[in-house]
Amino acid sequence: MPLGLRVLRKIEQIIREEMDAIGGQEVLMSTLAPKELWEKTGRLETVDVLMKAVAANKASSLKHDADYVISPTHEEMITPLAQSYLLSYKDLPALPYQIQNKFRNEPRARAGLLRTREFPMKDLYSFHADDAGFTSFYNVAAGAYKKVFERLGLGHLTYFTVASGGDFTKKHSHEFQTVMPGGEDTIYLLNICQNCKSEFGAGLAYNKEVVLPDSSSFKCEQCSQNNFTVEKACEVGNIFPLETRFSEAFNFKYVDEAGQPQFPVMGSYGIGPSRVMGVLAEVFADDKGVAWPEVVAPFKVQLIDLDSGRAARSGGSTGVADDVYKGLTSVGIEVLFDDRDDVSAGEKFAEADLIGCPWQVLVSKKSLAAGGVEVRKRGEKQGKIVAINDLTNRFN
Amino acid sequence: MPLGLRVLRKIEQIIREEMDAIGGQEVLMSTLAPKELWEKTGRLETVDVLMKAVAANKASSLKHDADYVISPTHEEMITPLAQSYLLSYKDLPALPYQIQNKFRNEPRARAGLLRTREFPMKDLYSFHADDAGFTSFYNVAAGAYKKVFERLGLGHLTYFTVASGGDFTKKHSHEFQTVMPGGEDTIYLLNICQNCKSEFGAGLAYNKEVVLPDSSSFKCEQCSQNNFTVEKACEVGNIFPLETRFSEAFNFKYVDEAGQPQFPVMGSYGIGPSRVMGVLAEVFADDKGVAWPEVVAPFKVQLIDLDSGRAARSGGSTGVADDVYKGLTSVGIEVLFDDRDDVSAGEKFAEADLIGCPWQVLVSKKSLAAGGVEVRKRGEKQGKIVAINDLTNRFN
Repeated sequence: MPLGLRVLRKIEQIIREEMDAIGGQEVLMSTLAPKELWEKTGRLETVDVLMKAVAANKASSLKHDADYVISPTHEEMITPLAQSYLLSYKDLPALPYQIQNKFRNEPRARAGLLRTREFPMKDLYSFHADDAGFTSFYNVAAGAYKKVFERLGLGHLTYFTVASGGDFTKKHSHEFQTVMPGGEDTIYLLNICQNCKSEFGAGLAYNKEVVLPDSSSFKCEQCSQNNFTVEKACEVGNIFPLETRFSEAFNFKYVDEAGQPQFPVMGSYGIGPSRVMGVLAEVFADDKGVAWPEVVAPFKVQLIDLDSGRAARSGGSTGVADDVYKGLTSVGIEVLFDDRDDVSAGEKFAEADLIGCPWQVLVSKKSLAAGGVEVRKRGEKQGKIVAINDLTNRFN
Repeated sequence: MPLGLRVLRKIEQIIREEMDAIGGQEVLMSTLAPKELWEKTGRLETVDVLMKAVAANKASSLKHDADYVISPTHEEMITPLAQSYLLSYKDLPALPYQIQNKFRNEPRARAGLLRTREFPMKDLYSFHADDAGFTSFYNVAAGAYKKVFERLGLGHLTYFTVASGGDFTKKHSHEFQTVMPGGEDTIYLLNICQNCKSEFGAGLAYNKEVVLPDSSSFKCEQCSQNNFTVEKACEVGNIFPLETRFSEAFNFKYVDEAGQPQFPVMGSYGIGPSRVMGVLAEVFADDKGVAWPEVVAPFKVQLIDLDSGRAARSGGSTGVADDVYKGLTSVGIEVLFDDRDDVSAGEKFAEADLIGCPWQVLVSKKSLAAGGVEVRKRGEKQGKIVAINDLTNRFN
C-alpha cells in the first residue's frame, strides 16, 4: 500500500547508496531464466524452492512451450552475463548488483514480510582475479552492510555472524543477524560472544549451525572463551564465498597477466529490503503502531488538522493547516496531511501513531490561541507550541 | 545493463510524476496471484498469454502445491484489494497504480524491448461511482498520457488512437500510437486523420481494427472525411473502459448516497516503460548510436579525457579532467567519465556517440591550449571551447 511502499523504497535507496559507494554497478536481470542455465550448474533438480513458469491453459492457438525457471537467485544468470564482458584481468574486479524480486516456493511462508514466496532482494555478485582479491572485497562488503544497518537504526542489534558455507565452500559464510527479543523467526538462534568484535567493528556472533553439536566446548575464534548468551534473531543480510563453483560450471575464464586462462573467484551478497522492513516494524513497534526511524518513515511529518470538520471543537476553519502544508512541502519536507473532515480528533491521533511518522504537527484553535501549532514526537503526550514562521526551520 | 537501467528509471519517474499529478496513488502488488482470483473472472482458461508457477523439481521434502498465476495484468488483484477499502461513495474515485513487472507467454516475443515475455508496466486502475465519473477521469488520464509522451520528446509522433474495446465493452478503448517510419511493429497499422485533434489536443487516429473491413467508406468521427494516410506505429500506451466487468465478477459494491449498493465503474490505463525505451531508441537513433533525449539520457554529460594515457598525443596528464569531473558532479550534474587509459581518442569518440549522452565535454592538451575544454552536442563535429570556470553555468 502507498505508505508501506514509501518505506520500502527508502530502505532500498539506503542499500543502493552503500553498494554504489563501494563500487557496485546497478543492473537489472530478468526473473525468467532459460532452464538450460540451471541445468549447467546442476541446480535445476536440487534447489527445493525452485519454481518454473508453464502455460496456464490451452487457450493459445500459437504453440509455445514456455518452460522457464522463475529465478530464486541469479548466479545462473549473472555468471554467463559477466562471462561476455570480463575477458581480462584488467576487467576485474567487477561488482554488478540489482534490486529485484525473487521467487521461492517457500514451505514456511509466514510472519508478514519476514518470509514470503515473492520478495525484493538486493543481490550483488563479485568477480575477482584471485582469492586475495575476493577476501579484500569481502571485508569491504561486510563494512558496507554494517553501514546499511547502522543507517537503518539497527546497528546496535545487528551482529556479524559466522555461519556455514553450505554446499559451495568449506569456508564459512557470514550473516548479519538482528536480535529481536520477541522475534518471529525461530530459525536463527544465535550464540553471541559478548566481548568480541569483527574486524570492521560489528559485534561478532555464531550461528547455531556452526556451534552444534558440541556447544558446551565451542569456543569463540577470537577470545577462545565460550561465554555465550543465546538469543533469537532474524537474518537481515548474508555474504557468501562462491569460490569458483559457478565460473567453473560455465567454463568462464579470464586471461591473467601472464596470458593464462583462469576461473574468476566469486562471492555473493544479499539483503532483502522487505524483510528488513518487517524487522524494523518489529523492533520499533509499540502498542500504538510502528515508530519508523526517520530515515525510512513514509513521511517526516504527519500534519493533523483539528481546525475544521468533526475534529474541531466548534465549526469553521481558519485555513491555517492548508498554509502549514504548503509551507512545509514547498521547502521539500515530506508531509502526510490528515485533512479529513468526517473523522474525530481521537481517531486522527490514533491513526497518526499507528502510521508512525516521527513528527506530528497539530493545528487546532487551542494551539493557534497559544501562539502557533503543536509539534510533538510520535509517542509524546504533549508537544511544544511552535510559531508558524519558525516551523520550517524546526524541520530543516 | 547500468546505462540502460538509468534510462528506464528516468522514463518510469516521468510517468510516476504525471500519475501522481492526477491523483494516482502508487502501490505495489505481487506477481504471484492465487489462481482462485482468476477463476472468479473466468479468465484462467481464456487468456492465451497466461502462465502459472509450479514446483520445478521433486527436491522439496516439504510438500507444497505451488500453483499461482504469474500475473500478466492486475485487474484480478486490484479489484478485491479495492473492495476491502472502498466501501462508500465517499471513498470514490480511487486511482491506485503501480510500476511492476508483467509476465506474458508472448508468442511473438521479438524486436529487443518492444515485445518481451517479461516487462515493466505502469498500470493504473480507476474506480468510480458512475459512468459520468469514469468519463471525466478517462479524459484526465488521456491528458496525462499526452504530457508523458510530450515530456519524452515523442509528442509530435504520438497519436490518440481509437481502438476496439475488446471483449469487455461495446465502447471503444484508446491507444497512444507512436509513428515509426521504420517501425519494427507491423501490428498497429494506422489510418491517421491529418486534421483532427482529440479534445485534449493530441492528434487523432484510428486503429486498423476499427476501420476494417470497409476502410474505403470509413469516416473520421470528427470531420466525417476519409482523407487518411496509413502509417506504421508502435502502441506506447492504452486506456480502457472496464465498465463493471470486474466489480461484478467479485460482487464488489459500494454504498451510494441513497444507501443503495452499486457496482463501481472501472477503467485501466497502461504504459510499458521498457517498450517506450525501445521506441525512443528507434526514433532517436542514427548510424552512430542512440541520441537519447536529455530527460531520459543515462547521463547529461559524457566527459572524455584525451589528456592522459593512449588518448593523449604525448604522455603525461595535467589532471584537468579529474577536476572537471569533480566540479560538475559537485553541483549535481550527471557525468559519465571516460577516464580509460588504454583506449584511443577515436574509440572514446565512437563509444560516446554510441552511448548517446546529449553533451560531450572533451579535455585535451589542444583544448587546454585554446583556453578550456571543448563542449559539443552529440552528433556535432566541432564544439565550442568553454573556460573551465564557466563550465558549471553552461550546464545549469
